[in-house]
Amino acid sequence: MDPGELGEFGLIDRIRRRLGEPSGSVCVGINDDAAVFALKSKGYGVLTTDVLVEKVHFDLAYTPIRSLGWKAMAVNLSDVAAMGAVPKYALISLALDSHWSLEDIDALYMGFSECASEYGCDIIGGDTSASRSGAFLSLALYGEIDRGAPILRSGARSGDLLCVTGTLGDAYIGRSVLSAGEEIEPFRKAVDKFLRPLPRVREALQLRENISLTAMIDISDGLASETGHICRQSGLGCRIDEAALPLTQEVRHWAAIHEQEVSSLAIQSGEEYELLFTVDSADRNTLEALSADIPVSIIGVMTDSAGGMVLCGEDGTRDIISGGWDHFKENETK
Amino acid sequence: MDPGELGEFGLIDRIRRRLGEPSGSVCVGINDDAAVFALKSKGYGVLTTDVLVEKVHFDLAYTPIRSLGWKAMAVNLSDVAAMGAVPKYALISLALDSHWSLEDIDALYMGFSECASEYGCDIIGGDTSASRSGAFLSLALYGEIDRGAPILRSGARSGDLLCVTGTLGDAYIGRSVLSAGEEIEPFRKAVDKFLRPLPRVREALQLRENISLTAMIDISDGLASETGHICRQSGLGCRIDEAALPLTQEVRHWAAIHEQEVSSLAIQSGEEYELLFTVDSADRNTLEALSADIPVSIIGVMTDSAGGMVLCGEDGTRDIISGGWDHFKENETK
Repeated sequence: MDPGELGEFGLIDRIRRRLGEPSGSVCVGINDDAAVFALKSKGYGVLTTDVLVEKVHFDLAYTPIRSLGWKAMAVNLSDVAAMGAVPKYALISLALDSHWSLEDIDALYMGFSECASEYGCDIIGGDTSASRSGAFLSLALYGEIDRGAPILRSGARSGDLLCVTGTLGDAYIGRSVLSAGEEIEPFRKAVDKFLRPLPRVREALQLRENISLTAMIDISDGLASETGHICRQSGLGCRIDEAALPLTQEVRHWAAIHEQEVSSLAIQSGEEYELLFTVDSADRNTLEALSADIPVSIIGVMTDSAGGMVLCGEDGTRDIISGGWDHFKENETK
Repeated sequence: MDPGELGEFGLIDRIRRRLGEPSGSVCVGINDDAAVFALKSKGYGVLTTDVLVEKVHFDLAYTPIRSLGWKAMAVNLSDVAAMGAVPKYALISLALDSHWSLEDIDALYMGFSECASEYGCDIIGGDTSASRSGAFLSLALYGEIDRGAPILRSGARSGDLLCVTGTLGDAYIGRSVLSAGEEIEPFRKAVDKFLRPLPRVREALQLRENISLTAMIDISDGLASETGHICRQSGLGCRIDEAALPLTQEVRHWAAIHEQEVSSLAIQSGEEYELLFTVDSADRNTLEALSADIPVSIIGVMTDSAGGMVLCGEDGTRDIISGGWDHFKENETK
């Protein structure tokens, strides 16, 4: 059987079933942004890994190597942040083919290092190898939760507010502009976000200090897909308010030029590395007060699973499907 | 500049210098089998990663996929063992090209899982990706040291005994037999050791409980190279007794057939995943008593650095050079 037929999530499910149950000290296994285990004294250790493969996750034709290093670190930091943990240590495994010069490797490590130190994370080990073809980067991060529990995908409750940090769609625009060789200047912020995403490490900690976070995930595969994870794992549905989706002028402008529907683009755009989270509705005022410090938008509400995942706009209500959404279903579930 | 000119160790040195000093909680950075950090309460956390690249580290033409999974886990467990730590959790990152069927992936995970559970380690997370060409496996392991300090490469003292677990040369013979398509049966043990090495996790813990280990490393690049690490990092030399090198009949037999010098082969053979360690000479009797339980050989003694690294045989004394040894230097340093 071809693994492509299962898809990435099907494959992960299959692997998880075959590995069986881990031992008692493991609190979260292969089911969330990072794995979590109980530390002996108190608190939790958090472990995560993300692999970046040339021509699959990045293209050196339009990605500066130093940015690639930054981004590889940022995507792992984002996973640690999404658990509500503090990133501590990083391991870096590389396999590089003969196209890489020493100066390239220096630039890559400069990127790793800039991003890690910006977020207080130490690079403490790794492994380097030759590759016969293409570059592979695999980072593993260890983080810690001193107080409170990890924030899982499965903790949302009906009535909770659904919220997101920052804006949506930028990374998609950034990559489109770069890969098509369009003029960068009008879309500078989107390009910067695509090349050097800022993981929401500090925002995650500030949020968990101030409000009752019930579920959290980072947006690597797009809002629609990540919302699907929270809904499935929490046994819920959700209603997202189309008008509340946080969009920049750049994103609106690019969508208009390219005649793409901007909200479809925004909820499907991957590699945003924003946090998607749910919060007790009693915390609405606190959240709105926090938004002076942290760019955060309330985009919807969690519902019973019978409601499904829907996007409510001026023209009616549409089903959101994982990784995108279904064709128009006028007012059917409204 | 071409990274090949620097070599792997030169590249690691360069990276370490550029990354600068890690923060205070890091006890061992990029300088040993694994990185070590202080846990908040007591004890240490240990992190290590090893990457295996198709056609660089393994060849699927003669490596069964289930064995590959076992071995990828075993080499990481071996690094944790070499710090004197207990392996706890593993992360698995994979990038696989389109040649891999679901059944292949199942076999790979069966190998990972068999090896991990044999040594009490939980697989708690990972990442899977497509690759455009070739397979890339990167594992990261977390281990813990509850009592005592990690066993570093740098702690050996002049006069300490130099010891090794198991036998040497087997992995080289195993790979040679497989890659040349020779008849396997006469070299079954060597082939098994090459395909499914047994990391010395329990032996490391038993040794550290009973004797004063001063330095330890696992043999991934060959005895000569690993001895070089201990000597350089401890500021010492060593004398290895050629007659004391632990060799199986299979290894002697293969070397005789192929007219290779067996001790040269034994000290250069990589992927043995035996432990090389130094121990206070006062522990000689305890060590000899332990050897009823643990296959361990005293192969030499640590000396001042002026003595260099030498192999003493019937025909005289030869300098050992990293990754191999120099031409005969008859009695020059004897």
